[in-house]
This record gives sequence, C-alpha cells and structure tokens, in this order.
Amino acid sequence: MLGDWRRTHYSSQISPEMDGEEVIVMGWAHAIRKLGKLIFIILRDREGTVQIVVPKQKVEEEIFKTAKEIGKEDVIAIKGKVIANEKAPNGFEILPIEIRILNKAATPLPLDPAEKVSADIDTRLDNRFLDLRRPKIQAIFKIRSEMLKSVRKTFYENGFVEVNTPKLVASCTEGGTELFPISYFEKEAFLGQSPQLYKQMLMATGLDRVFEIGPIFRAEEHNTRRHLNEAISIDVEMAFCDDKDAMEMLEKVVYNAFVDVYENRKKELELLGVNLELPNEKFDRITYDEAIDIANAKGVELEWGDDLSRAAEKAIGEEMGGLYFIVDWPTETRPFYTMPNEKDPKICKAFDLMYKDLEISSGAQRIHIYDLLVERIKAQGLNPEGFGSYLEAFKYGMPPHAGWGLGADRFTMVLTGQENIRECVMFPRDRQRLTP
Amino acid sequence: MLGDWRRTHYSSQISPEMDGEEVIVMGWAHAIRKLGKLIFIILRDREGTVQIVVPKQKVEEEIFKTAKEIGKEDVIAIKGKVIANEKAPNGFEILPIEIRILNKAATPLPLDPAEKVSADIDTRLDNRFLDLRRPKIQAIFKIRSEMLKSVRKTFYENGFVEVNTPKLVASCTEGGTELFPISYFEKEAFLGQSPQLYKQMLMATGLDRVFEIGPIFRAEEHNTRRHLNEAISIDVEMAFCDDKDAMEMLEKVVYNAFVDVYENRKKELELLGVNLELPNEKFDRITYDEAIDIANAKGVELEWGDDLSRAAEKAIGEEMGGLYFIVDWPTETRPFYTMPNEKDPKICKAFDLMYKDLEISSGAQRIHIYDLLVERIKAQGLNPEGFGSYLEAFKYGMPPHAGWGLGADRFTMVLTGQENIRECVMFPRDRQRLTP
Repeated sequence: MLGDWRRTHYSSQISPEMDGEEVIVMGWAHAIRKLGKLIFIILRDREGTVQIVVPKQKVEEEIFKTAKEIGKEDVIAIKGKVIANEKAPNGFEILPIEIRILNKAATPLPLDPAEKVSADIDTRLDNRFLDLRRPKIQAIFKIRSEMLKSVRKTFYENGFVEVNTPKLVASCTEGGTELFPISYFEKEAFLGQSPQLYKQMLMATGLDRVFEIGPIFRAEEHNTRRHLNEAISIDVEMAFCDDKDAMEMLEKVVYNAFVDVYENRKKELELLGVNLELPNEKFDRITYDEAIDIANAKGVELEWGDDLSRAAEKAIGEEMGGLYFIVDWPTETRPFYTMPNEKDPKICKAFDLMYKDLEISSGAQRIHIYDLLVERIKAQGLNPEGFGSYLEAFKYGMPPHAGWGLGADRFTMVLTGQENIRECVMFPRDRQRLTP
Repeated sequence: MLGDWRRTHYSSQISPEMDGEEVIVMGWAHAIRKLGKLIFIILRDREGTVQIVVPKQKVEEEIFKTAKEIGKEDVIAIKGKVIANEKAPNGFEILPIEIRILNKAATPLPLDPAEKVSADIDTRLDNRFLDLRRPKIQAIFKIRSEMLKSVRKTFYENGFVEVNTPKLVASCTEGGTELFPISYFEKEAFLGQSPQLYKQMLMATGLDRVFEIGPIFRAEEHNTRRHLNEAISIDVEMAFCDDKDAMEMLEKVVYNAFVDVYENRKKELELLGVNLELPNEKFDRITYDEAIDIANAKGVELEWGDDLSRAAEKAIGEEMGGLYFIVDWPTETRPFYTMPNEKDPKICKAFDLMYKDLEISSGAQRIHIYDLLVERIKAQGLNPEGFGSYLEAFKYGMPPHAGWGLGADRFTMVLTGQENIRECVMFPRDRQRLTP
C-alpha cells in the first residue's frame, strides 16, 4: 500500500533534464501496452500523463510481474528513475525501481476516461467520478476554481467583508420564484432562493460592503440548458452606493476573472479548445428600450414592459456579442426592492449583465426608504406583514445601497465555452436529477 | 440624498496632518451633543468614529439647522474641512461645509448601539442589524472574514481545487445524525449534513486535493452553546495521503489563520479584549487512551469505547490547554468510512482537533478498499444498498485518501474568545430560532 511513499512530482513537474533522478509518481493506469518482453504504462495524474517503461531484461522479475498485473484505471504508485528519451512523450520516461498497485479497478468500466468518444451527458453525470477523470472535464473545474479565487481576490482588494447568511429561512421572501419547503422541527421552513434580503439587512449594520458565495435553491420546474434548481451565487451588496457603483464593481470582478483564467489556466483553455477573448475593462451598455428595438428589428415581437423572451435574448445577443449591460428596465419587470428612477418611476435602476444571449448577473440600486419599500411590496401584490425583520432594518437608519448576484455556474459556462450549465457543476440538481 | 457624493475617507483614514483638507465622510450619528450654539456629532462608520463640530457662528445657517435635526442613528453624509484640534478625539474634528441626512432613524431604537450595556442575546439576535452596529460585534465578523480569507490562502498555496458539492441529497447518508427532509418536486430529498461522501467520491477523479467551504445542516435537537442546526464547514479531502498528512495540513491551515488574524486584525482583537496567543506550528497529540486516563484522574468516569462526554472534554481541556489532537480512537466510536489501524483494528486512524474543551475539527484516513467499506457499513447497522453511487466510486480505482472538516463557526469562537457559537454567526439557526 501507500506506506511511507509520497508523490515527489506530478507528471508535469518532470522533464528530460532530470535524467537519472529518482522520483515517485502516483495516479491511474490510463493506458497499457504489453508487448511480450516490454510493457508501457501511461500513468495519469491531475497535471497530465507520464510514460512508464518496463523492459523485462532491465528490471527485477518482481517488478515485471507486478507491471503485468496492472489493469486499466488501477491506482498505481511508481518509484523509478527518469530516463531522457527523445522518442518518448515529452522526451522522457520512467524506469521503475518499485511498483505498488494501491487499488484495483473493476472491469468493464461504466465509462472509460481514456476513450476518445464521449458518452451522453446522463451516463456521464451518473458516473461523474469517472467522467471527471477526463482531462477535458477536469479542466472545466480547474477554471471554475481559478475564477472563484480571482473573484474573492477582487473582493479583498476592494475592502469587502465575507459573510454567511442562513439558507434555512422562515418565509417566502421575494414572491414569484417558488421555494422548497422543509420541515424544521415543529415549524415549516424554506430553502433560501437568494441571500438578497439578508445582504440588504446587513447594509443597515455599517459593515458597508459584503460578499457571499454560496448555494441558492429555486423550486422552478424549468428544463433548460441554463437553469438548475441548486446553484452557486456570487452575491454582493454595497452601502452608500448607487447602481453605477455596483456595475463598476461587477465589471472589475468579471474582467479580473477573465484575466486570471486567461493567464493561469492556459493549458486548460487549450484542452477545451477555448480561445478566451479578454473583454474591455468597461462593458457596453444598452437600455432596455434599445434592447427591445434590436429584438423587434430582428423579427421578435415584444412590447414595452415585457420581460425579455428567450427569442429576444438570442436576437440581442447576436447583435451585441460578448459582455454588455442592459439598463433602464421597466420597474414592473423587476423585484419590489428595486429603486425606481427619480425622474421617471416607470423605469428603474436595475441592470442585467449579459454574455451574448446568457444573463450572468442581475443587480440594481435598492430602495432604502421604508415607506417607498412598503408601497412597492404592496404594488407587487405581496403582503408587507410577511417581511417583518427585513422591513425593520429600514426603519432605524438604512443607507442608500446597491448590489448584484452573479451566477457562478453560468459564469463558468462563459469562461469554459460550455453550452449546458450541467457541464459546469460537478453534481447538478435539476427536476429529474437528484443523484449522485 | 447621495447624489454624486461618495465617501472619500473612512474615519480611520483621517488624521490631524490632513488639517485644512476637504473630505466626505458617511455613516451613522452615533452620539449627539447639542449645547445651544454648538453641536457635536460623533459619526460612526465601519472603521471607527469621527467628531463633527458645528459652531453656529462658523457655519452657514442652513448647515446648523440641518445639524439640529439630526437624531441618533440617522444616516448622514458630511462634506467638510479637517481641523486639527488636540482636544478632539484622535486630535482632529470636521467642520462641515454641507450636511446631508440620507435616512432618518425611528425612535425609540429597539436596541441602542451606543449603549455601553449590552442587551440579552435573544433581543440582540432579534435585532441583529442594530446589534451589528456595535464595533465589538462587528469585530467578531471582521475576524471571521479574515480567517476565511487566510484558510483559502493556505489551500491555494498547497495546490487545492475548490469544489461545490450539492446540498440537496437523495438519501440519508451517514446514519446517526438526523436530516431535514425536503419535498423535491415528486420526490423526497434531504439537506446534506456534510460533503463527506461527495468529497470522497472526488478522490476517485484524480483532482487530488479538494476543498469546500459551505453550509451543512443537522436536524439534531440539541440546545447547547456549541451546536447550531445550520453551520459553515471547511472541508478538505486529499488523495494519496494518510491521516498524518491530513493532520499536517490542518495544522498549517489553523496556524496560518491564527497568524493572519493576529497580524491583520489587531484593532478588532483589542476591541474584544482578546489576547490571542499564537500556537506552536505543531500541535500536541494525545491518544484516546491518554485522554480517558486524564478524564478518569479528574474524577470523570469513562470506559474504553465510550465517546468523550461533555464532562470528559472539560476535564481534558483543563489539563491540555490550547490546541491539541486526540488520536487512536476506538473504531466503533467513529463513522463507517474511517480506516481501522492495520495492526490493531479496534482502533482507527481518526483524529479530533480540540481547542481547550471544544472540538473544532474531526478527520481521518478513510477506507479506500471497497470490500472493507461494505463490511464497515454493515457492521454499523447500515444498509450498503443506501450508498449506491458513493460505493460505485470505490470499485474503479480509488486511491488512499484522508481529510477533515473544520467548523468555521467554532473556529471563530476560538479566535474571538466567544463562549456561545451564536455570537459567531450573523443569523444563527437553532431549534428555537429560524428568524430573522
């Protein structure tokens, strides 16, 4: 077994210049070629593959015997010497001094990570632990991890405090979107559909700028390539700020993530065949009215006050390309807490950030005036009594504030060039899928 | 209103050397003294307080009139000149050029942030948005945010990939701990009590080292100062590693967080009156047997094989002081996935990290051998059929692995010197509390 062995190098850390050095590599038997008196094993680890060469005449009998027993996807550990060899992949191979089979793999595999042809997405998701052995699939999640790291770095640099708000909530908060009910001891509770009301309440504390990255839950019965019932939301709220400030912060966060992924995940982008184009630091901005005009011009019928249909999003995305904001939305299309425009209350201080035809973020300046907030709750057919502790926070000194939510899974789609959000979530949850 | 004003300085960024400079400060009217022709306002923001001086004879009539209207906890913005003044707090005050009241605060306040005497914890939690205005309470969450930042930094430096596993799960996984049921469309689902099974499945992918920081949910009916029904867990799993490797990584993460909080949150520690003692880089280690002996010697009756009672934890904590590991636990006291010791299978490769009498982390080398895992599931009275996709991951090449979970809320208790976990969570959830 493992014993006192520890990996000394990932495959990518070895080079022909290390000729003669002893290394320990660990991973999976990705491919095996047995040619009578010569065995080649391609060992795969997180960073790539390395060739192990086992010539019967050059290794001890025990080693050749062990090598012969190795099957596809067995977990193996090899102590050996680096041998520079121009003909080997990457210019070197490893001649084993000792081989340990750490765990055998059963056959046949439900999904073969070494196969060139990919299975259908359901089979792949059912066997995600095998699917994730494919370097291409791992690349998606390495990019996702890099993106999350980058996003937090931007928050830290801009004086944000990280918070955690509860996912177990007492009542249906925002109306509209459906919630999952939970039985919570003697009471009924729900799963939070967004940290919205909590992050706003925190604006009344003086913490000033908060962010949270956590799960959100939506019980909507959609069946699209852009929606899941459990998602990760990157949430921000900023006090003493307006919608323009919030948009600027969103630009920073998204731009920096593009740059960090571009610079630190070149290998993964290449594996995925993604030619990531860096956006401008400032994104284009169009008004809702202009968006409607674009859609209409492309034959999508839409009236002022309608939410953008899928067809409209596609038409607008085609016209606009990469990243762009849509601003000046009709007040009635947005949640009750959205600040109406002072001069023309029919429109409001909300914005969506789009990437082509995909909405990746949505935000706004919020209402900070108690009476106006109650008025808007009522106007949307909701009952202010259902908003007890939220509304309380507006009575005793609530500053102007603004914020947004950025979908981590959708943002990963953008950065990795994926068309289906399920590709960007390790264990996605949709109406049909609750396992693994 | 806010208009085009933006805060130019937090209170702590202004100094007497800036005498004569114009600044904009924003925050809450923390305290007000009206002395006929002279008004003093203490403005509070995230970083501290600043004195605003409004002498009737030196400011425009309009300004004095506005200042007179300011009530406690109103949200205010002040454009003014910095005036060095030895007698003022911090050696300066601000003479306003313009004052804007951004939002009024109703009176009386349910909880006064400026009061020296603190209300009881229930009143405070009911009015958390006001409670969090107290610099002392904010200090707890600034330290928590710093700790999370530090923890992630250590993960990044050690080659970890950040993952998000689902919180909606199909079945009761680990047994023992109770779960919250959810109605998930036509099916029943549960809230995840830990990412344990998912992070282990990811060890079969070759991602090698993963971490996740996210909520966990436990439907236990406890009522203690150390438990909540929703908590944040810092979870780690490492492939090709044993329990010793996992403990070393835990030491790194915890030690670095102590150092980062110590170095970057001095002001907050001081506010809280916490004299944070830096631990050694290596923590003490005692065996379960030694722990039992200590408890027995202090009059706590405990037999070999018992889990540590609260009284035992207290006795051991008293003896051991700060941070220490307890290792070599009886196999039967630990979850089924814990690797038994090869030489003596009655004990296992599990560890707890304690701080005094508080368990802050729990981990182990895991079983990576399919047959042994099935055997242990059965031995604990559980049905292997309930572990479908989890067990599948052990069939096709699962490497040896180890990991741990560190309670973010409990770790915050340690770093901030709090006795009640509710002090370290913004909106805690216990059996009685589901709001705000």
